[in-house]
Amino acid sequence: MSTPEALQRAASSLQHTTRQSVAELFSKDEPITVGDYLLTRLSQLGVKSMFGLPGDFNLGFLDLVEDHESIEWVGNCNELNAAYAADGYARVHQNSIGVITTTFGVGELSAINGIAGAFSEHIPILHIVGVPSTVQQKNRPVLHHTLGDGRFDAYTKAAEQFTVAQTNLMNLENAASEIDRVLTQCITAARPVYLTLPTDIAKAKISSDGLKTPLVRHTPPNDPGAESFVLDEIVKLVELAEGKVVVLVDACTIRHDVKDEVHDLLAKTHYPVFSAPMGKTAVNESYERYGGIFCGALSRPDILETVKTAKLILYIGAIKSDFNTGNWSYTIPDSAVVELHSDHTQVQFARFPSIGMKHLLPRLTERLKPFKPTGKITVPRTVEQAPPDPSTTITHDFLWPTVGGFFGKKDIIVAETGTSSFGILDVPFPDDSIFVSQILWGSIGWTVGSTLGAALAAKQLGLGRTILFVGDGSLQLTVQEISVMIRSGLTPIIFVLNNKGYTIERYLHGKTRKYNDISNWKWTTILSTLGGVEGQTCQSYTVGTKQELTTLLNNATFAKADKIQLVEILMEWDDAPRALKRQAQLSAV
Amino acid sequence: MSTPEALQRAASSLQHTTRQSVAELFSKDEPITVGDYLLTRLSQLGVKSMFGLPGDFNLGFLDLVEDHESIEWVGNCNELNAAYAADGYARVHQNSIGVITTTFGVGELSAINGIAGAFSEHIPILHIVGVPSTVQQKNRPVLHHTLGDGRFDAYTKAAEQFTVAQTNLMNLENAASEIDRVLTQCITAARPVYLTLPTDIAKAKISSDGLKTPLVRHTPPNDPGAESFVLDEIVKLVELAEGKVVVLVDACTIRHDVKDEVHDLLAKTHYPVFSAPMGKTAVNESYERYGGIFCGALSRPDILETVKTAKLILYIGAIKSDFNTGNWSYTIPDSAVVELHSDHTQVQFARFPSIGMKHLLPRLTERLKPFKPTGKITVPRTVEQAPPDPSTTITHDFLWPTVGGFFGKKDIIVAETGTSSFGILDVPFPDDSIFVSQILWGSIGWTVGSTLGAALAAKQLGLGRTILFVGDGSLQLTVQEISVMIRSGLTPIIFVLNNKGYTIERYLHGKTRKYNDISNWKWTTILSTLGGVEGQTCQSYTVGTKQELTTLLNNATFAKADKIQLVEILMEWDDAPRALKRQAQLSAV
Repeated sequence: MSTPEALQRAASSLQHTTRQSVAELFSKDEPITVGDYLLTRLSQLGVKSMFGLPGDFNLGFLDLVEDHESIEWVGNCNELNAAYAADGYARVHQNSIGVITTTFGVGELSAINGIAGAFSEHIPILHIVGVPSTVQQKNRPVLHHTLGDGRFDAYTKAAEQFTVAQTNLMNLENAASEIDRVLTQCITAARPVYLTLPTDIAKAKISSDGLKTPLVRHTPPNDPGAESFVLDEIVKLVELAEGKVVVLVDACTIRHDVKDEVHDLLAKTHYPVFSAPMGKTAVNESYERYGGIFCGALSRPDILETVKTAKLILYIGAIKSDFNTGNWSYTIPDSAVVELHSDHTQVQFARFPSIGMKHLLPRLTERLKPFKPTGKITVPRTVEQAPPDPSTTITHDFLWPTVGGFFGKKDIIVAETGTSSFGILDVPFPDDSIFVSQILWGSIGWTVGSTLGAALAAKQLGLGRTILFVGDGSLQLTVQEISVMIRSGLTPIIFVLNNKGYTIERYLHGKTRKYNDISNWKWTTILSTLGGVEGQTCQSYTVGTKQELTTLLNNATFAKADKIQLVEILMEWDDAPRALKRQAQLSAV
Repeated sequence: MSTPEALQRAASSLQHTTRQSVAELFSKDEPITVGDYLLTRLSQLGVKSMFGLPGDFNLGFLDLVEDHESIEWVGNCNELNAAYAADGYARVHQNSIGVITTTFGVGELSAINGIAGAFSEHIPILHIVGVPSTVQQKNRPVLHHTLGDGRFDAYTKAAEQFTVAQTNLMNLENAASEIDRVLTQCITAARPVYLTLPTDIAKAKISSDGLKTPLVRHTPPNDPGAESFVLDEIVKLVELAEGKVVVLVDACTIRHDVKDEVHDLLAKTHYPVFSAPMGKTAVNESYERYGGIFCGALSRPDILETVKTAKLILYIGAIKSDFNTGNWSYTIPDSAVVELHSDHTQVQFARFPSIGMKHLLPRLTERLKPFKPTGKITVPRTVEQAPPDPSTTITHDFLWPTVGGFFGKKDIIVAETGTSSFGILDVPFPDDSIFVSQILWGSIGWTVGSTLGAALAAKQLGLGRTILFVGDGSLQLTVQEISVMIRSGLTPIIFVLNNKGYTIERYLHGKTRKYNDISNWKWTTILSTLGGVEGQTCQSYTVGTKQELTTLLNNATFAKADKIQLVEILMEWDDAPRALKRQAQLSAV
């Protein structure tokens, strides 16, 4: 295999080895501060940026971060945005994690929606919280940032709802093992974990011995007997399907690191492959057997028809949420579906716990090779074009096919929940591009922080441009984070769909209601207000016609994206992409 | 009594009667939607504004809000800001409550830090969350805004940590009584409560019968025997103190509605009165026996000396947090203190549960009248003046005494945690002004949302100007809410202390560390970017010298505050008010 993914993986593994050697320098049992132990672990995991805000309970730890040789501190404007940034960073820096540091109570609670979103969407984030000293935690005085009633564990109780592991480092004896435990949970489950660091622990010293042993994503091998049974069951169904097998990839293919295994399966079986919305870019879309986005009743009609002809669906890494499945409008019976998950397998109606796809997939590929060239399902390759429309107005029907032609290989394309996340689904993406969207959690404003983290990771990994599509309503929630992009020298292209309100809500309910209106901001002065120098470090545009948009997209200087750019796209308040209109019909309230 | 407070109270009671009559219109047992039942209750409590954001699970309820005759929907830019706004609203609209409506998961969790702050600081807020239908809550599908694992109760579990009562309206039988129960808890405890409203319940009809009976803050009468015992104990101590009694008022004097009772006590005893920082404006500062802010070792030396001479402190409505007490540097022995709280009384070392101050205070006043004119403690009346300084630079030593002269009666003065909240303490406030600050919770950025709510309440109550002091670092967290002030036609004066970073953090730790730096924004284009028209609906200024500041403050047009105004004050990055420097010494980490 010499796919770009494989090369990247090889490079990353090499990097990993280098990091191990660095760790070895520490590892002559030299004492190390707890904070530095943690930072070394993060460095071993490939982390190069930490997001968050200073607060008096984390300042001591931040000294260590600022002094760290390979991890940079990214001071955010607020904690929710910081959590979003950590999330975006982890989505692009695949196989690493996102890290956010906040302060006790006020800081950590501001971030909690971002952490919950990462839980929901399977994103590995470490949330470090600077907390009062171990002595204060025992005496529980009425400190600032407390609830005033001595309940110092209230924030942890909230965090327990949205993280897969928690630890409060209250003593030096188990600090290292606790750090290792929660980080291992984080990378294994691909979900957030929570670690509190008391002020007196951050700089206290412990043995660095543990750092000699790198952390591993130990997806334990499947039980051989059960795995073999499951493989037999699947093979039987494939035989019965007489070649009419379709692979459907979804989010967890990316999150749980089985992209390579899936590519191998596809290469050796030639099964046609479709993607759920959340799985977009799990498979390169130029692949000849890739057929587009399948989303039940929301699918393009030719895709829907093709998938219907399948007698068996191999559904890999599914997240069966409403917006990811066209409101569960799949018409495929359970008897025709095999679901491969990170921690279990479902064959028709039977659930096999602990049979994870990471180990199952290579064996499945081996077993399915004999059934190779089926070719019985022809993959639809049509691409939606902007329908003819004499009006100069930029419509969604025009916008999405048009920007599709602007995307390049390895670009990071971020789409906000709403018209953008629905509109972009049918746009074919170039190879090795990464689609960043939050289709299950759907917290509006998320893309702005996420774009910061995504652009930073893209820069560190040598990927392409970061391109954001966000509505004016959503951007207002989190706008300040653009200033951190500017300060960090990042150069995303931000398309602001100015449609005067919450258009997705209008479609769901209350089309002309005032509660769906927002203030109209002067979008072209946002960059300069937030610290950019217009024409030098930043550039702003407004486009109101189709011609203006295409001219801009064809401008090589614009396309080069060597400074941060914001493009206000004037659109009608009541226009929406096809898929959103259909979704609204399905789930209107 | 004909104090302005008393008049206001009388007006409010009259209003209350009117509201009752309105309620009676509903009350012929006419069915009413659950949403309207709730809105009528809020209207009865004096609520005229509801904060929040639309989300598909609350849109049906928002129809009812938008159609409501006396409650207006204030669409915020994000949920944290909305919670802050509800908090500021409740602080100014005393004896009413703040209300915020958000949507399931993403919305409510974004607000949770604001709710926790209200819990900490005793602010009554109702948090209404639009949630999936009762059917969906039973079947628990993987809806958007869920964690993807069927745990529909996770958000409520988080909310339980930060609210005093919760209800999920799952059936029509108890919807009215549940609404009444949580609202009663809210107004009685002066703390937030949490109510979830399923989509299918919001518009379902119930009996309006309950609305005939207005909700009351039923602080139950104290047990007569215990109360009498406590009074005897206090009187004995007052006798022993030989007239050397000092009253110290704190936050809960305001929050738990005993300002009138305290005024009466002071009028009849002539005891000198001091205020803790969080109690500022509980007593009119022009009152001849008012001596200023007592904050332990952080107090002005003459105040500290005077309080030290007392043999007994009557401490009313205390919140004994670090920043409210000069890091607990009171040197008064417990044997010389009587503490009056909303739900208990502490006499020296003895705690008397359930003896609340609302009923105790009038009886205490009666008992203490005979000990009247003591006059043995002379109240310090000095006011700090700006020390002579030939430099033109605007220092904290200059700023605070100078702006003090700008304040007028009934002004709302909001000070952000940091240099502002410390700097403003020694500034005398005019009568009937309201001090808004978050000294215990201390979530930076809070004042911006809070100013929106405060200014709205001030407008509704016919109070004075709303004047905000906020640092550049804090303002960046929540800046977008200024656009809602503009859209709502509010005209606060926003002083932005531009000192290039988190100066309070610099004093606590890491003075020159990069993590305390922030981006420098173009503050004078913020208003026009966020929807204002410079010179028409808004006006921005930068002042860099003492002369420029005083000239502006003396400008009658500026002082009139008939449009929203932002004043950037250029200050040195390492300057801080006296009290902050001292606090930093006490609590440096």
